[in-house]
Amino acid sequence: MGIVGATGAVGQEILMLLAKRKFPVAELRPLASARSAGKKIVFADNECPIIEATPEAFTGLDFAIFSAGGSVSLALAHEAVARDCVVIDNSSAFRMDAGVPLVVPEINAHTLASHRGIIANPNCSTAIALMGLYPLHRRFSLKRFFAATYQAVSGTGAAAMRELDTQVRQWASGRVVEKSVYPHQIAFNLIPHVDSFLDSGYTKEEMKMVNEGRKILDLPGLRASTTCVRVPVFRAHSIAINAEFETPVDIHSARDAIAKFSGAELCDNPENKLYPMPLFYTGKEKCGVGRIRIDSALDNGLSFWVSGDQLWKGAALNAVQIAEALTRNPPAA
Amino acid sequence: MGIVGATGAVGQEILMLLAKRKFPVAELRPLASARSAGKKIVFADNECPIIEATPEAFTGLDFAIFSAGGSVSLALAHEAVARDCVVIDNSSAFRMDAGVPLVVPEINAHTLASHRGIIANPNCSTAIALMGLYPLHRRFSLKRFFAATYQAVSGTGAAAMRELDTQVRQWASGRVVEKSVYPHQIAFNLIPHVDSFLDSGYTKEEMKMVNEGRKILDLPGLRASTTCVRVPVFRAHSIAINAEFETPVDIHSARDAIAKFSGAELCDNPENKLYPMPLFYTGKEKCGVGRIRIDSALDNGLSFWVSGDQLWKGAALNAVQIAEALTRNPPAA
Repeated sequence: MGIVGATGAVGQEILMLLAKRKFPVAELRPLASARSAGKKIVFADNECPIIEATPEAFTGLDFAIFSAGGSVSLALAHEAVARDCVVIDNSSAFRMDAGVPLVVPEINAHTLASHRGIIANPNCSTAIALMGLYPLHRRFSLKRFFAATYQAVSGTGAAAMRELDTQVRQWASGRVVEKSVYPHQIAFNLIPHVDSFLDSGYTKEEMKMVNEGRKILDLPGLRASTTCVRVPVFRAHSIAINAEFETPVDIHSARDAIAKFSGAELCDNPENKLYPMPLFYTGKEKCGVGRIRIDSALDNGLSFWVSGDQLWKGAALNAVQIAEALTRNPPAA
Repeated sequence: MGIVGATGAVGQEILMLLAKRKFPVAELRPLASARSAGKKIVFADNECPIIEATPEAFTGLDFAIFSAGGSVSLALAHEAVARDCVVIDNSSAFRMDAGVPLVVPEINAHTLASHRGIIANPNCSTAIALMGLYPLHRRFSLKRFFAATYQAVSGTGAAAMRELDTQVRQWASGRVVEKSVYPHQIAFNLIPHVDSFLDSGYTKEEMKMVNEGRKILDLPGLRASTTCVRVPVFRAHSIAINAEFETPVDIHSARDAIAKFSGAELCDNPENKLYPMPLFYTGKEKCGVGRIRIDSALDNGLSFWVSGDQLWKGAALNAVQIAEALTRNPPAA
């Protein structure tokens, strides 16, 4: 198993989850830029030297999980595949390629069978939103949704997590609050700007949820509109969703659909002040779905709220789950 | 001018805004509970003793702005009116009463003429959302909207602002984070729970935006669905809105409508990373509207994002603007 970007926020969680979930790792080969080569990371109590991610470095690996950004994936994923290494790519580089399965194992593991060497891991907000949308879609047939995200700084990476930490400490000690990762202060603020802007006025991040959602759910005609916002939270994303369905909805059945879905945990007991919150879905494998109610502005509509660990279901966990699914059901030769 | 709740977060802003906007105050009479009586507040460089808010305390006042919660308003507003004091009430106690105008001066100042002594000030999220919705409604005729709020702790009051401050300092110094105002930690967290829950699963806060919006816009058939969320921001609210209109929309005309509206400021230049953010709409009289785009999931739809100072347009400023409108156009005898 190769891990490209092993020292990053997602890479570190992948290492932890491979060990936690007892993934059968014969050899752990951490790969990174030349700058990190020679350093060591710890995996399952062993020190593993970091190797420079060159094309040859993938020789002999069965899998490599890429979490080092789109440009690294574009440069090296096909090189890995050419060396018989199956790539699970956490970047957006290949997600919308027709020949690349975009997989959330609880939803469309069957599409893994058709892979040609690269499997894409979805955007973090998409994966977390789908943990609420998919079970409801199975029950009521999704037609359209509106989503507003509340995205943790972990989605930007380890440097952004340090920036929120530093800004809060600067603020608490009366110092000037400095910024470098984000264009604006994130502490005690909200930035309605995640990824770059398109001519339509939507951001790329906002369109990922629409386009990736269509692909994963196999609903090319799905309509969706999203607003993506960065919030001063460390590592779990939350999403407010209004969803419209083809068939009549009811609360009992909606709750039942969520409760029975393996990717979600029903957390919906408002009388006892229980609803998903990022602080309580950090370090949880399942995403929390709650605040489920009949939508007051849609026919056959449900409103709900999801929180999920961005580094886990939004990235590392989903990638490890893909590797697990491939190991259980290797594609026919 | 009487100020009921003069020592609270909103009361303090009312005093400041009356002075800043040079409201013609003949006598400033701060009113509060017996506990605060005898203390002094400063208004326009003069010390004013706080008087206990009894029915008799309203004698001789032309106006009183109530910002001390619904139960104080219910107990004393009619007593004030009986003493020829016009009440501008910041609580939710009378907002939906058919005989009480619910006023945002930029939108429906004309309804002030019909008041019978009490005028209601809308909920903070409602007033701020309407600074984007109303000018677009005038241009395109609003039919339906979906809103997700990002509400600052100031909406809960001064104690909640102290709680966020304290929690962040406790966290920064490695101490246990304590909570008392909110049922859960608010620092680095999100609480999808503002005001109490109704049987429908919506909160009272969520229904305020729907019901007050209908009344203020005089659109009884308006459909709306909202999710209200408390975020770790000190005092400006933000709202992501997807709005559907009766007539075709276009971006140029939408931007023009916002730019020409006295309650809003067009802040929509994403290429230069300019969009409304709570940190930059704290202490601003106008609300910022930006991220305006053609909605991808609605016919005749627009998505946009609003930020506005909860203590100002969401409460104190709107109340002072109502007093100003009444002073300019006293109702016919």
